[in-house]
Amino acid sequence: MEINGVYIEDTFAEAFPIWVSRVLITASTKKWAKIAATEATGFGCSVIMCPAEAGIEKYVPPSKTPDGRPGFIIQICHPKKSELEHQMLERLGQCVLTCPTTAIFDAMGDMAEEQLKVGFKLKFFGDGYEKKDELYGRKVYRIPIMGGEFITEAKFGIKKGVAGGNFFIMADTNATALIAAEAAVNAISSVEGVITPFPGGVVASGSKVGASNPKYKFMVATTNHKMCPTLKNVVEDSEIPEDVNGVYEIVIDGIDEESVKEAMKQGILAATRVPGVKKITAGNYGGKLGKYQIKLHELFE
Amino acid sequence: MEINGVYIEDTFAEAFPIWVSRVLITASTKKWAKIAATEATGFGCSVIMCPAEAGIEKYVPPSKTPDGRPGFIIQICHPKKSELEHQMLERLGQCVLTCPTTAIFDAMGDMAEEQLKVGFKLKFFGDGYEKKDELYGRKVYRIPIMGGEFITEAKFGIKKGVAGGNFFIMADTNATALIAAEAAVNAISSVEGVITPFPGGVVASGSKVGASNPKYKFMVATTNHKMCPTLKNVVEDSEIPEDVNGVYEIVIDGIDEESVKEAMKQGILAATRVPGVKKITAGNYGGKLGKYQIKLHELFE
Amino acid sequence: MEINGVYIEDTFAEAFPIWVSRVLITASTKKWAKIAATEATGFGCSVIMCPAEAGIEKYVPPSKTPDGRPGFIIQICHPKKSELEHQMLERLGQCVLTCPTTAIFDAMGDMAEEQLKVGFKLKFFGDGYEKKDELYGRKVYRIPIMGGEFITEAKFGIKKGVAGGNFFIMADTNATALIAAEAAVNAISSVEGVITPFPGGVVASGSKVGASNPKYKFMVATTNHKMCPTLKNVVEDSEIPEDVNGVYEIVIDGIDEESVKEAMKQGILAATRVPGVKKITAGNYGGKLGKYQIKLHELFE
Amino acid sequence: MEINGVYIEDTFAEAFPIWVSRVLITASTKKWAKIAATEATGFGCSVIMCPAEAGIEKYVPPSKTPDGRPGFIIQICHPKKSELEHQMLERLGQCVLTCPTTAIFDAMGDMAEEQLKVGFKLKFFGDGYEKKDELYGRKVYRIPIMGGEFITEAKFGIKKGVAGGNFFIMADTNATALIAAEAAVNAISSVEGVITPFPGGVVASGSKVGASNPKYKFMVATTNHKMCPTLKNVVEDSEIPEDVNGVYEIVIDGIDEESVKEAMKQGILAATRVPGVKKITAGNYGGKLGKYQIKLHELFE
Repeated sequence: MEINGVYIEDTFAEAFPIWVSRVLITASTKKWAKIAATEATGFGCSVIMCPAEAGIEKYVPPSKTPDGRPGFIIQICHPKKSELEHQMLERLGQCVLTCPTTAIFDAMGDMAEEQLKVGFKLKFFGDGYEKKDELYGRKVYRIPIMGGEFITEAKFGIKKGVAGGNFFIMADTNATALIAAEAAVNAISSVEGVITPFPGGVVASGSKVGASNPKYKFMVATTNHKMCPTLKNVVEDSEIPEDVNGVYEIVIDGIDEESVKEAMKQGILAATRVPGVKKITAGNYGGKLGKYQIKLHELFE
Repeated sequence: MEINGVYIEDTFAEAFPIWVSRVLITASTKKWAKIAATEATGFGCSVIMCPAEAGIEKYVPPSKTPDGRPGFIIQICHPKKSELEHQMLERLGQCVLTCPTTAIFDAMGDMAEEQLKVGFKLKFFGDGYEKKDELYGRKVYRIPIMGGEFITEAKFGIKKGVAGGNFFIMADTNATALIAAEAAVNAISSVEGVITPFPGGVVASGSKVGASNPKYKFMVATTNHKMCPTLKNVVEDSEIPEDVNGVYEIVIDGIDEESVKEAMKQGILAATRVPGVKKITAGNYGGKLGKYQIKLHELFE
Repeated sequence: MEINGVYIEDTFAEAFPIWVSRVLITASTKKWAKIAATEATGFGCSVIMCPAEAGIEKYVPPSKTPDGRPGFIIQICHPKKSELEHQMLERLGQCVLTCPTTAIFDAMGDMAEEQLKVGFKLKFFGDGYEKKDELYGRKVYRIPIMGGEFITEAKFGIKKGVAGGNFFIMADTNATALIAAEAAVNAISSVEGVITPFPGGVVASGSKVGASNPKYKFMVATTNHKMCPTLKNVVEDSEIPEDVNGVYEIVIDGIDEESVKEAMKQGILAATRVPGVKKITAGNYGGKLGKYQIKLHELFE
Repeated sequence: MEINGVYIEDTFAEAFPIWVSRVLITASTKKWAKIAATEATGFGCSVIMCPAEAGIEKYVPPSKTPDGRPGFIIQICHPKKSELEHQMLERLGQCVLTCPTTAIFDAMGDMAEEQLKVGFKLKFFGDGYEKKDELYGRKVYRIPIMGGEFITEAKFGIKKGVAGGNFFIMADTNATALIAAEAAVNAISSVEGVITPFPGGVVASGSKVGASNPKYKFMVATTNHKMCPTLKNVVEDSEIPEDVNGVYEIVIDGIDEESVKEAMKQGILAATRVPGVKKITAGNYGGKLGKYQIKLHELFE
């Protein structure tokens, strides 16, 4: 299959269930909402070594937020529900409550499968000076702080979402692959319900499970040597085509399979618009590990 | 004491020892170096609930970096040495190694008191395809990845630094205090050797040790009710002056006491330039907890 | 009338007809599209002394642009049609054609009242090497440049729009007014069809027609002394309320009166959300100069 | 000559005299200083069709500015002295005076060859309510505006500088050339005394004097067809090497020849660090038009 002249491999992305929370952070200005959202979602690329997977989903203008202020929706995700609550308490309590003029509201709404009492737990910081209240039709706590009052909704909905949607961009040079990856992330950022948790949304270092080197058997994951351009003529099982010298991966988490699929579709379309992109493929484990198999060709039917 | 017409309280900031690492992240462009630095230092405000304290210290132009590419120096800090190494491995391995075109170098240099073999440990990701090399007069590993090669220096120096340098900005309105806090952070960002680990460098929610509410005795820290403007006329022990309605704190970590002092000085000077700032004070525990006591008045002698 | 506790004066903004063009700038990445849009709309606050009024209207994701790449819609406006064409040729020819990976498309579409042959004229830069073509259902020229090919649509639609929609934010302190102004601009940036041409969308220096000082009769416009907080107790005709110490104005241009009204409404709503804002008013010339009178109270009926 | 494995052509950049002003814009926060600097230097790429050449030279931290606030130094340049004054009045009067919390100071200092009474002329906006004063050892005017007081230094120094310093980056792909151009601009931005006036500092559309197409004789400048990759196999006099498919130019203006040379040197060094860059060359008119000839090889002696 070809799209915009780029070969799309007939393969699938293998993805996994993950618990997803969706939090709206508002602030006096877009700038401070962005600062809080960025801090709260940092160090959140992959649960392989980060304490959570997290990212900014989208900007919400004042006319669409409960308190009429600019905001950003973030997602914090974790395979374990208890650990997700822990991460929400730490990230919202340390990176948003501390950030000037912010407030937090549930953004999962009716999609929620369960409710976590995150606001209820954060409110103890108020030392008894906090107030329970109802604002904008939501049950909130108002916690007195130096910057005024921190408003937090009492409960935050979570649901089972999808982690690890992905595709690989292969191009004539590293720089072409990088520009195409950036274009793909730009496109995905306008898709509802998804995040790209890696730095700038891009993964430069794909990994395989375990190690092939017998001395490194203690490693849980090592470089995906088949996808390394500098090993193209070194390893026998290289999957780098002759005309490819740059590869980047885009990883997507989302609230459901549909949103992850849409993100993959829009991201791939954008990447194929960059001259010099040669091939799009996806990462999987032969279908053995993940619950979801998202076929690239089906995205474009 | 008055500076630029603002009252400077005769008190001191109480600060603590902390292990500090200083890592230079370079990349093809300033943009990608910034993305990696931001992701690697996110979720890094305070070790009370974050896994580390971390922040961006400064930009380094191509003419001053080992590999002639633009870079940012970050600091990752932790009271425990073993935990600092753990955090460095996770943050550099997950948030920088994965970020397009990046490389990492030690930026502690001769100031280091100890060396951590962080690069040596990261190199196992290479699955045996990595190479030991000497580049720019430094011992490095070259790890093949999809984005080319990730260069990491073998060892990274750490030293005992200072955490918790601080001052409080009290102003006529919340907005004035916020603008002044931003100005203070702008000033501190040009001081060598320091970071302001909170979101945007500013703390909106100061805390006290424990709780005064007997029902909340399980809390390690609660809101510093004496410094909450909305409680000015509610609590008896409020420390908010009559003409003050907005308070923000700046918290500073650094490689040594001198750099933290310089940062406090420059930050306070900048804050006092904003019309409407009424008072500068600092946070301490009566000198009982911290090793360092940085007196505000001595900064200006 | 009060909104969110803020007094809304019963007055109107007086606005003027202006010729408006609406150009979509796309690029390989959102970053480069933004750079081109920023350069092309700079030095474009007010036709009093700038050669045009110009600004960025909104971001358009790859899925919504003709060429599937990220883009920004800009507006370039001028009271005179011939001068507008001149400005479009200069700004698009010097600030977009020169910017890496960009292309330009008409974004006025069916709303256009006239068509300017801007692309036709820009194509002469191609020295005969350019090609006429049809792409994405549009007539374009493909001009060879160092960065590849610059694609420009042949014609760009213009229409009579509205300039000078405005409101004033009056607050307890300058900093409060500034934060509120920023919040207002954040809100307006999500309204379709409008720009806020001043720096950051905010006007710090309101002007009146002519001068009151007899020695300065040569001036076309001077400071609106009635609205200067520092002259509150100096001039007899001050319009600064006792509890106000900070004033900023938001000026809005747009494709029609409806979009300017919606922008004023959303901007005012956002401003009133900032604690310390005291009053919203608007600027007019007694209805003598402008074609449009936009009454503040009617915005909220 | 080769640098970092990249061929440096034995040629020279031909540059021209230009009148340069150097203005420091300070503001309450770095953010607002940047907004003013960006607006004031927009639509300022080349005097071929822009009313001036302008750009941001560098950030100045609060500890180094007269008023202890963060600031940016901009340059506004024009071949004609009278036109430069005109442009300064318009750009500073419309894009900085109108921008919240800003002030402007001369940053040319002792290097000035002449003084323009720009502040003296701007002060008439004050309608007689302005005050002459001496602040920070400088003669200033304090003009009352809505946002408080606008401080402008009375006189601004100008000098004969150098325009049109340049070099070309030729690379295997367009994307490689683009990343290298960005790296070069990053490097140049840390060189004292220079600006890169084009969008993002990069020129995508090089031009030649006049037209080769006899029908286009009315054109003052047309595309430099010899440097267009898409015409490599179309025109007989192409200067695009076989292995090159992407070309960008960096154009530099500065206060003197030495600073422009240093910028060219640092920019070229940074560009050669990007893998896939093949050749660096420079633009000239055979030495017939410009006063300055900056030889590439001499930069590295």
